[in-house]
Amino acid sequence: MRIAIDAMGGDFAPGEIVAGALQGREVLDGGDEIVLVGDEVVLRQTLVSLKASPDTFRIFHAPDIIGMNESPIEAIRHKPKSSIAVMAHAASHRQVDAVLSAGNTGACVGACQLRMRTLPGVSRPGIAVVLPTYGGPVTICDVGANIACKPLHLYQYAIMASVYAREMFGILSPRVGMMNIGEEEAKGTDLIKKTRDLLKNDPNINFIGNLEGRDLFEGKCDVVICEGFVGNVILKLSEGMANMIFNAIRVELMTRNKLLGLWFKSIAKNIFKKYDYHEYGGALLLGVNGTSLICHGSSKARTIKNAIRACKKFYDKKINDQIVSAISKSAVTNNGA
Amino acid sequence: MRIAIDAMGGDFAPGEIVAGALQGREVLDGGDEIVLVGDEVVLRQTLVSLKASPDTFRIFHAPDIIGMNESPIEAIRHKPKSSIAVMAHAASHRQVDAVLSAGNTGACVGACQLRMRTLPGVSRPGIAVVLPTYGGPVTICDVGANIACKPLHLYQYAIMASVYAREMFGILSPRVGMMNIGEEEAKGTDLIKKTRDLLKNDPNINFIGNLEGRDLFEGKCDVVICEGFVGNVILKLSEGMANMIFNAIRVELMTRNKLLGLWFKSIAKNIFKKYDYHEYGGALLLGVNGTSLICHGSSKARTIKNAIRACKKFYDKKINDQIVSAISKSAVTNNGA
Repeated sequence: MRIAIDAMGGDFAPGEIVAGALQGREVLDGGDEIVLVGDEVVLRQTLVSLKASPDTFRIFHAPDIIGMNESPIEAIRHKPKSSIAVMAHAASHRQVDAVLSAGNTGACVGACQLRMRTLPGVSRPGIAVVLPTYGGPVTICDVGANIACKPLHLYQYAIMASVYAREMFGILSPRVGMMNIGEEEAKGTDLIKKTRDLLKNDPNINFIGNLEGRDLFEGKCDVVICEGFVGNVILKLSEGMANMIFNAIRVELMTRNKLLGLWFKSIAKNIFKKYDYHEYGGALLLGVNGTSLICHGSSKARTIKNAIRACKKFYDKKINDQIVSAISKSAVTNNGA
Repeated sequence: MRIAIDAMGGDFAPGEIVAGALQGREVLDGGDEIVLVGDEVVLRQTLVSLKASPDTFRIFHAPDIIGMNESPIEAIRHKPKSSIAVMAHAASHRQVDAVLSAGNTGACVGACQLRMRTLPGVSRPGIAVVLPTYGGPVTICDVGANIACKPLHLYQYAIMASVYAREMFGILSPRVGMMNIGEEEAKGTDLIKKTRDLLKNDPNINFIGNLEGRDLFEGKCDVVICEGFVGNVILKLSEGMANMIFNAIRVELMTRNKLLGLWFKSIAKNIFKKYDYHEYGGALLLGVNGTSLICHGSSKARTIKNAIRACKKFYDKKINDQIVSAISKSAVTNNGA
């Protein structure tokens, strides 16, 4: 696998990204290659500052950067020499097999959709994120690529995320739930009701029905499908809420005993390790013709290393081939709905 | 204030509901009255079993019950003698000023909308829930009454929830944010973009722009508006996640030291008390012509008592009159959008 890493994207780029690339070599095989994308001079210097040879990696020179808050559409249009654009271009020309970025998510998704195109039969790519829960990893798709979903899109997310959960986590027949405002069949929008009909009629999907927000953490399902808007809120809300609760506990302990508060930090660290989605490296853009992983903007070296590992697994397991096969066997096709 | 309480609705009805009504007398004045709605024989017996006089309250007899999992529309149609239907009927005939139920939320919202009608100028009622956060109480509207929102609906939620937050929590100029997939203006659905234009152009709303899921807990805003679908997921996800994190911490502590695990329960209890939305009693159905409070299905006596207090405050502060006044002054009207 040849993987291109956007070394200029993310809150801690390029230092932490390059450090992650260096660590990432541990999880790769002899035939694999990491390519950095970004300003060549800056990246060679960064490598030296990290006590590595400036020639450790091949570099695709990209003098421009898309900022975290830039409008994705504008940025893709006006910055063809940005690291994200150059990275996606390399993937579309088969110079690399996988791409990885912790930069502007919208720009990254947009560039990958535009350049790499979708897999045969896939209508719309979706971002799949893995939330660690008590009941095991739960894959949520979509968390923000597609905020104007049609039933076919959600239906295909169920197929793609099922393949993903099966191959990545060894779940033989992933239980798929659809996020809704209640479990009852009569509840939900038109989109939900139409998608449910598609899912119920497909024997290849282990569809367990509607879910409510609270079900996400109770081991009821392995895959959750939802519109990108809802998935995005779920993802970011979970993050904010976890932070608030841990803070609340620390403050509560501090008021009782300062030592207890400090001691709790180590407890919290341990829990975060188990329930930290950074552990999974990032979010896969399912449905594009290639391997594209989007990392959190706050990614540090460890996350990048885990992301490289995730890309490698996704690529080696030929998950895209299996998605194409599953989509081709599905009851509803791009033309049919 | 005369308040009708659905004594048959909720997981712990009628026992905890009646107990809550008994406790609720403490927060009412001499001129106020609680009326129980439900099976008269059962309720008189329940009062006696709680060591109260069977004649403590007036009772509106309702022999039927709408189950928690019944389809709201079907139930309202076919069970006119259910406690929820009788309660809403009493409100619509001005036999009571306020209603309160911990029963089937959909049925309760539906019955109140149908019988009590909307306030003059209000297009659609919305459920407002208060989430306790570090930064203070955050009012979210809507959390499930309206899953097919138009810009005018969201815009009016901003107006109504602002009045609510100002009067209930004394926040002079509540900061209103709109839940979105990013803060940038270019992000979001058509609904979001059109609503933003309405909000930006109204000098009477302290609109601070788009919010992301994580902002909810960081003291950035006092009011969050969103579609009912998104709000419902937010509400239930928060609940499920809080439970998971506290469980994770307890388990982590248990593995280190059993006593620590038990001791943590008291810490957790203290935190839950501060961040527990049961403290606020329930969710107000804003925009109906009357006072309607919906409680969580798992409500116990304390929640019902707090809910009665919330109704009393809402009623005494004449919040509905202020909503009507604010809506009448708003830039966009029912006819205009």
